[in-house]
Amino acid sequence: MANITKKVSWSSRGDEPAPAGEGTPLLNGAGGAARSYSRQFSGSGIFQIGRLSTVDLEEDPAPEEESAISRPKEIPHNEKLLSLKYESLDYDNSENQLFLEEERRMSYMGFRCLEISRWVVCALIGILTGLIACFIDIVVENLAGLKYKVIKESILSVAEVCDPHRSQAATVNATWILHNLLLMFRYREPIAAGSGIPQIKCYLNGVKIPRVVRLKTLVVKVCGVICSVAGGLAVGKEGPMIHSGAVVAAGVSQGRSTSLKKDFKIFEYFRRDTEKRDFVSAGAAAGVSAAFGAPVGGVLFSLEEGASFWNQMLTWRIFFASMISTFTLNFFLSIYHNKTGELSNPGLINFGRFDSDYNLYEIPLFICMGALGEDGLDCNHPARFSSTRYIHRPCLQVMEAMLVAAVTATVSFAMIYFSDDCQPLGEDQAENYPLQLFCADGEYNSMATAFFNTPERSVRSLFHNPPGSYNPPTLGVFTLTYFFLACWTYGLTVSAGVFIPSLLIGAAWGRLFGIMLAHITPYGSIWADPGKYALIGAAAQLGGIVRMTLSLTVILVEATGNVTYGFPIMLVLMTAKIVGDYFVEGLYDIHIKLQSVPFLHWEAPATSHALTAREVMSSPVTCFNRVEKVGTIVDVLSNTSTNHNGFPVVTRPGKICGLILRSQLIVLLKHKVFVERTRSRLNQRKLQLKDFRDAYPRFPPIQSIHVSQDERECMMDLTEFMNPTPYTVTQETSLPRVFKLFRALGLRHLVVVDSENRVVGLVTRKDLARYHLGKHGLEELQLAQT
Amino acid sequence: MANITKKVSWSSRGDEPAPAGEGTPLLNGAGGAARSYSRQFSGSGIFQIGRLSTVDLEEDPAPEEESAISRPKEIPHNEKLLSLKYESLDYDNSENQLFLEEERRMSYMGFRCLEISRWVVCALIGILTGLIACFIDIVVENLAGLKYKVIKESILSVAEVCDPHRSQAATVNATWILHNLLLMFRYREPIAAGSGIPQIKCYLNGVKIPRVVRLKTLVVKVCGVICSVAGGLAVGKEGPMIHSGAVVAAGVSQGRSTSLKKDFKIFEYFRRDTEKRDFVSAGAAAGVSAAFGAPVGGVLFSLEEGASFWNQMLTWRIFFASMISTFTLNFFLSIYHNKTGELSNPGLINFGRFDSDYNLYEIPLFICMGALGEDGLDCNHPARFSSTRYIHRPCLQVMEAMLVAAVTATVSFAMIYFSDDCQPLGEDQAENYPLQLFCADGEYNSMATAFFNTPERSVRSLFHNPPGSYNPPTLGVFTLTYFFLACWTYGLTVSAGVFIPSLLIGAAWGRLFGIMLAHITPYGSIWADPGKYALIGAAAQLGGIVRMTLSLTVILVEATGNVTYGFPIMLVLMTAKIVGDYFVEGLYDIHIKLQSVPFLHWEAPATSHALTAREVMSSPVTCFNRVEKVGTIVDVLSNTSTNHNGFPVVTRPGKICGLILRSQLIVLLKHKVFVERTRSRLNQRKLQLKDFRDAYPRFPPIQSIHVSQDERECMMDLTEFMNPTPYTVTQETSLPRVFKLFRALGLRHLVVVDSENRVVGLVTRKDLARYHLGKHGLEELQLAQT
Repeated sequence: MANITKKVSWSSRGDEPAPAGEGTPLLNGAGGAARSYSRQFSGSGIFQIGRLSTVDLEEDPAPEEESAISRPKEIPHNEKLLSLKYESLDYDNSENQLFLEEERRMSYMGFRCLEISRWVVCALIGILTGLIACFIDIVVENLAGLKYKVIKESILSVAEVCDPHRSQAATVNATWILHNLLLMFRYREPIAAGSGIPQIKCYLNGVKIPRVVRLKTLVVKVCGVICSVAGGLAVGKEGPMIHSGAVVAAGVSQGRSTSLKKDFKIFEYFRRDTEKRDFVSAGAAAGVSAAFGAPVGGVLFSLEEGASFWNQMLTWRIFFASMISTFTLNFFLSIYHNKTGELSNPGLINFGRFDSDYNLYEIPLFICMGALGEDGLDCNHPARFSSTRYIHRPCLQVMEAMLVAAVTATVSFAMIYFSDDCQPLGEDQAENYPLQLFCADGEYNSMATAFFNTPERSVRSLFHNPPGSYNPPTLGVFTLTYFFLACWTYGLTVSAGVFIPSLLIGAAWGRLFGIMLAHITPYGSIWADPGKYALIGAAAQLGGIVRMTLSLTVILVEATGNVTYGFPIMLVLMTAKIVGDYFVEGLYDIHIKLQSVPFLHWEAPATSHALTAREVMSSPVTCFNRVEKVGTIVDVLSNTSTNHNGFPVVTRPGKICGLILRSQLIVLLKHKVFVERTRSRLNQRKLQLKDFRDAYPRFPPIQSIHVSQDERECMMDLTEFMNPTPYTVTQETSLPRVFKLFRALGLRHLVVVDSENRVVGLVTRKDLARYHLGKHGLEELQLAQT
Repeated sequence: MANITKKVSWSSRGDEPAPAGEGTPLLNGAGGAARSYSRQFSGSGIFQIGRLSTVDLEEDPAPEEESAISRPKEIPHNEKLLSLKYESLDYDNSENQLFLEEERRMSYMGFRCLEISRWVVCALIGILTGLIACFIDIVVENLAGLKYKVIKESILSVAEVCDPHRSQAATVNATWILHNLLLMFRYREPIAAGSGIPQIKCYLNGVKIPRVVRLKTLVVKVCGVICSVAGGLAVGKEGPMIHSGAVVAAGVSQGRSTSLKKDFKIFEYFRRDTEKRDFVSAGAAAGVSAAFGAPVGGVLFSLEEGASFWNQMLTWRIFFASMISTFTLNFFLSIYHNKTGELSNPGLINFGRFDSDYNLYEIPLFICMGALGEDGLDCNHPARFSSTRYIHRPCLQVMEAMLVAAVTATVSFAMIYFSDDCQPLGEDQAENYPLQLFCADGEYNSMATAFFNTPERSVRSLFHNPPGSYNPPTLGVFTLTYFFLACWTYGLTVSAGVFIPSLLIGAAWGRLFGIMLAHITPYGSIWADPGKYALIGAAAQLGGIVRMTLSLTVILVEATGNVTYGFPIMLVLMTAKIVGDYFVEGLYDIHIKLQSVPFLHWEAPATSHALTAREVMSSPVTCFNRVEKVGTIVDVLSNTSTNHNGFPVVTRPGKICGLILRSQLIVLLKHKVFVERTRSRLNQRKLQLKDFRDAYPRFPPIQSIHVSQDERECMMDLTEFMNPTPYTVTQETSLPRVFKLFRALGLRHLVVVDSENRVVGLVTRKDLARYHLGKHGLEELQLAQT
């Protein structure tokens, strides 16, 4: 027998760059830089929160590697490239013998229990997401309330002695304090920056974005969003809710947390990509639901952005999670507001009820606004050139964030200060903190209403304040200022959403539009309700930026609590999308493209029928025999230049008989399931599905597995573990056909065979995502290792 | 060369039963019987409307056949059988050389134009569906108004002379007149009977139900629903709208009507199952949208019931059609009501606005109501044993329909007559025709409100009339009576929906529930709004009967115009579904099962992993060679005992190299694309995709194609026409895996091969639909030729 005491480490490449999936560039564009910054300060107390939870040492790159890969120059910002670093998720079950045996052993009651536990998980997801939303809402409300109170008092006290400079300083100071809080949290988990929606979109599409669904990310995100919003940056708290919901879902459904090193030993059946994806969909939906009080919108968001295969039961579960989430939020907020049982706060943002009706002749106007929403005030193109692309030095980033905070505060104050738009103080005001400033008694400063408020309240004021609450110049100046602030802020790496700033900008120019209409038309009375135009403007602006139609329509309809405006909102969103797509892609798509993510769209490019699987596939393919030498397997897996994840298993004449994954091989190697060993120890525990599940989803890299020289000579029988019935296509299959199969079933590997069933190639996500329709017909993206 | 003048008809089996797909039993359960009835009277003037439009002689079975197959005994009413007569639709494009050449020739602009024309078609579908809904609404309103006016006058005049018998006779007479109208239309197109929802469900699932999307069906359906509703039967006009929308979609998208023998030569690209299905989805959604003013609900209905592959663009188009449909209806109704431009009638039914709120402690009550909705008042089980199953003689059916009409009228009158529930006549009454009857002046009869009204108005009254408008006994008696009338009526073969009767019954007992609660609880005031309970009751009843959750929630929310009740409605529908599924399936599913339709559910039965493709597949398979003798092909196609529709094409050693469909072979035979002929006439026009499209969807039966004895010796080269890359699976593939592939891609044939790529079997819809989960685990249905 082989002498297994002599251990030879085959992980000789340990000092090379980290394995794939780690140290990859992150979607927010500042991943590497931010991380290296965090490294520099990792000893200081301020980063201890993040550092404490880095327990997954196996996967986290070693310090040397990290600094090596985090150089700014390695961040790809090229939409003509396709990164090879992103791994795919596999939504196709590997139906190997172990799996089939387990399924066959299971009784009907077993499946029923499984189904019930799926519902339980969805309920938990809903409850937790709702609680998080509730927590964010209450903390932000309190912090913002505190802040505005302090600033208001300081302004008032200062205004009395008529020293604008000191009052300005006071404002800036007050906001600054909160921004310091914000900056504390921003630099541990760069993936937590941004709204998180592009990341979730990618995840649901089937791309594994590292660390996107970890608890650590969630904690940083929640703290970050609270600080950003309370700190008065031009950001919203809704977008991050979607990400939070997804993280909660991923955590709950797996019944464990690697960050907390805690395994509850429940829901082990759900530890695979298929099930996890389903729950993450539910989580994202629950997040939308909690953010906007839009459960149906949440379901549609998940489906529109993610799921390719519509399954009725899954949809119901997603809907259930959404409903529970909005209900939980509603319930706890009602307790917080001392109105227990009155369920009138379905979401973080509530547009208030629109009771006015629109008329037929207004529809062309709405359509014009839709076109405007995209055309005139487009945040997307600037985003492409936003500062993150050029500022990679961490200290500069901090400086920039502080600068933005200071500028926001200063500009706001200047606006309020120099505005002479005084309005009488009515009884139906939505503002909590009306500022009298330099107005007469019984009046308040209208500009202050727009700036000196949480963005949610400002949106609601723009929608519902009676006609005449705002002067046109106020709105015009506000729109422009806020637009540039929002664009700048979005470029920062803060946890923040783009929804609310867009809505606010749109509502401002929409209201302006409505007021102007009333001015220029002879029958002023019929345009009496500028709030209606504010709503349409908000829809147009948001639609122009995020380019969703169906789900966004439903979200907005649910947020207004009235279906009357469904038709105009749909028209506006449709127009915004059509006009917008003519010029530039949506914000999320731009971000995804800039990061070179291999994102699969709904259909293959229209003109791609000329391509066949033969042209598309990768070849040659590394194959294994049914019974393969351990040494060969270790060598193939250790070969970082190819880094394949799926290997067809072939019989002697090269005919396909199965497909085995890198992750499975690693588990086999780790448990040393070698033929010789099994013979020697008959009582050795047979490898079970549980062993694979325990390792999921963070399979150790091959470098960490030690295989002795003698073991290298052993054989491994893959028959039991490979998927014996992989989907295959022939070489002549057209690209759209391959695409359809791949996309509909959520595959990760598709084997291409010839007429003799011999393996000739392998189609993966990158091979398909490479082709896209450019301005000059079909274009092919280059593949890059970065 | 072959002597082609000598023609030998190979359709020697012309006197045998009609080809598959024709003469099959129809979903409403009375197909055969009704048709034979129509035959008997086909000479009389009353059926001329139907007879005029039967222009598709090729497909309509000859008289002898029809009477032969229409014997009642042949109607299958057995849920343990699976009919072989239903053909499948093929949602997988046959990517043969012709198709690929066309696609490759097409420029990017060509695809853009195609995309635009898809949007145009969807807009047309929306407009036409909206117009039909508008037409139905206006005609029903007027007819019903006329009827109620006449009856009211007759009752009043008769009541003065205090002769109950004469007044009763007058009522019965008045309704009777309208019922005669109704009966005129009922007997030409039996597929037009019922709500049409099960048929559309089957169509979207991929089962071809004969004549389901024909213009003739639409005309009969529209007239039928007008007469049924105006005639006062316990039916609604909403369900049939869905069917109408689907027919409109199928017609418009194909750019021609076989019933009218008119080909507009447009949209030829859309003449295949894939595209047609997409448009039919849009049509069904537009129908729902027009019926309930619920565009989002319509989209979800289509997706929940039909589409398996969620495609973003398709969803947007469906949504667009829905929006256009509700807008058209709204617009034209506003013109009709002389309020042009006021868009306040989004659907045929409008629940009115609910402004009250629910409270937390009411949720358990709602859930109880959900369970009740299914449990206590279940129309489904009676439906299973409804009269249609036993009454097949046409004259008896007419008698029965008349009897129902008479009983409805008589019972209604008796109820009103003997009721002493008088209510004061307020100003906020929704009724158009309050009946004073034997009440004091200034009061009206409350029972009359419930019965003596279109069901839509009755529902609205139950929702919105102030507390105290109805006495509990009135509601109790009304619920019971209407329930039995509705069940009986549903058994008739009239064009009618089950939505409104269910809503009405539910609203009645829901309101009763609310009133009782107020009585038995000490704090009566908190249960002050029985209308809220009426809404929940209506949702529970409807959910218990049709068993939809997500789409129904959205439909009801959109119909109430308020998202507040979203959560309780969802809970109620979920409860109703869970409780209901425990006892008996939903109404539509029962109907589908009773007709032995091979309906594919969302997933394979949970415990079916033990089965593999080897057990499931049909074998042996009839295969063709690449170049096959014409005689062989004709013989195979003429073999009625097998009646295959897809034939694998194999190379000499039996290896698969393509798949060809019966329809393609028929077109080839019809155009005599034989190798010898081509050689002799080099200038012969090459067969184009257009030839296949022109023949779609009604390919002639093989019997109508004449092939001479000499031609039988010719060869046919199938290479160009077969699909060279059919999807294949190996024999070891588990049933769930086969199912997933089949369902996700909407296949019609799936070839099973061995490891050498040799054809060993073929999996079709029937092979998969056969397995279902019964009370005792996995059950297998028997296949039947009926």
